[in-house]
Amino acid sequence: MVRYSVYMKAIGIIGGVGPMAGADAAQKIFENTNVATDQEHLDLYLTSTPRSIGDRTKFLLEGGSNPAEGLYKNALQLISLGASTLIVPCNTAHAPPIFDVLRKKLHDSHPEITLLHMIEETAKHIGERFPESTTIGLLATKGTHALKTYPNALLAYPHITLIEPSKESQERVHDAIYNQRYGIKAQAPVSKEALAILLEEAHTLYDRGAKALILGCTELPLALTKETISLPLIDPTVVLARSAIKHTEPAKLKDETA
Amino acid sequence: MVRYSVYMKAIGIIGGVGPMAGADAAQKIFENTNVATDQEHLDLYLTSTPRSIGDRTKFLLEGGSNPAEGLYKNALQLISLGASTLIVPCNTAHAPPIFDVLRKKLHDSHPEITLLHMIEETAKHIGERFPESTTIGLLATKGTHALKTYPNALLAYPHITLIEPSKESQERVHDAIYNQRYGIKAQAPVSKEALAILLEEAHTLYDRGAKALILGCTELPLALTKETISLPLIDPTVVLARSAIKHTEPAKLKDETA
Repeated sequence: MVRYSVYMKAIGIIGGVGPMAGADAAQKIFENTNVATDQEHLDLYLTSTPRSIGDRTKFLLEGGSNPAEGLYKNALQLISLGASTLIVPCNTAHAPPIFDVLRKKLHDSHPEITLLHMIEETAKHIGERFPESTTIGLLATKGTHALKTYPNALLAYPHITLIEPSKESQERVHDAIYNQRYGIKAQAPVSKEALAILLEEAHTLYDRGAKALILGCTELPLALTKETISLPLIDPTVVLARSAIKHTEPAKLKDETA
Repeated sequence: MVRYSVYMKAIGIIGGVGPMAGADAAQKIFENTNVATDQEHLDLYLTSTPRSIGDRTKFLLEGGSNPAEGLYKNALQLISLGASTLIVPCNTAHAPPIFDVLRKKLHDSHPEITLLHMIEETAKHIGERFPESTTIGLLATKGTHALKTYPNALLAYPHITLIEPSKESQERVHDAIYNQRYGIKAQAPVSKEALAILLEEAHTLYDRGAKALILGCTELPLALTKETISLPLIDPTVVLARSAIKHTEPAKLKDETA
């Protein structure tokens, strides 16, 4: 089909999980594309229908209807517009009970479409960026911790040791994201309360020996940035954005900045 | 049709003009929606296909194929997904030779769809926010200045006096946006060169009596923000984002922040 020719390849972002993370992924794709004019940018489509997807953490912890159904519906919408490389900028959605269902449904109906796996791309990035034995810290939602998505993906890189916050600290990080008054999902720009919690928990992981920190929930880079913390950060949304460009039009990938 | 019921209304952003402005509009819609959880956000779709739209300023100054064709194609894509309120976050695209063609085509094929007009919404916002006789400054691309889109829209509010930069200053502002080395479209985050030019031209307008400044190109809010300049700014993308929410699910519109 002509729409999948080299010039018509397009990136599709299944957003809405959460909405800000979807828009953030789009920005990071544009920022990592080597262009001098608007017209040199890659074609990109974004869906953001959070009501039809549902809460990923709630499903993982309590069951109910699987968010994979809504994600798959969005995938079909993006494909109908011409998207050939799909990404889901949401860590929790990559837990196997959700992502494996989405991946199988999509592979069965559209084997020609590339669905990138954010956690696997991030594990690969870490394995290559830190070639020596290294300890890495993880900040994430309770759902992501409970499902062990990062530890499992990093098994392929045995020289990387992953450390996670204590149970109590995991609750605090989760609260900084989800609290309906001051959480990142409820308040933009990020509240002082949420930022204070996250800075404290980030420093605790560094004190325990982490050389870099995975921002393992797509809301976290809204709070923890070069401007708010001076320690090395790994943003899986940036890793995913760069992978999406590489799979779509590799010549347009910007050089990595330090 | 059931997809246009009150719960299924969705916002469609025709982005790509430029790409960062499209993602920025999505973020501003999310930031201006009153929610406590992801699931309370409105459904939203974004297209970003700059290659198939083309350069708006070039068309206005030199002719050639009308960007309205690509914009209309994107409008049809967004409608096919369920969008009922459409926005185009690009000032130059609102010049009558482009926007009037898009509006007519869309009205002829889909009279039930709302296409908001960023400049008219901004003029209305200014007319209401400044009820007394007030001077307002405009920073924009050469195309927007040449087509007089803001002066024409503000004719409906005769108590507002609009001032524009000198011809030479208009060239400098245009360069800060389009320069292929340090312009906002070529470099993210914004370069020091681009920011310095814009700060100087903004202050010149204030010295000439402007009480507030219209950021009349959607790339300008990436450079001129509360953090970089302490003078009152009017961001048409925020005005448009808020109008889109108001037309889609008015109860979800956040109170205006100062």
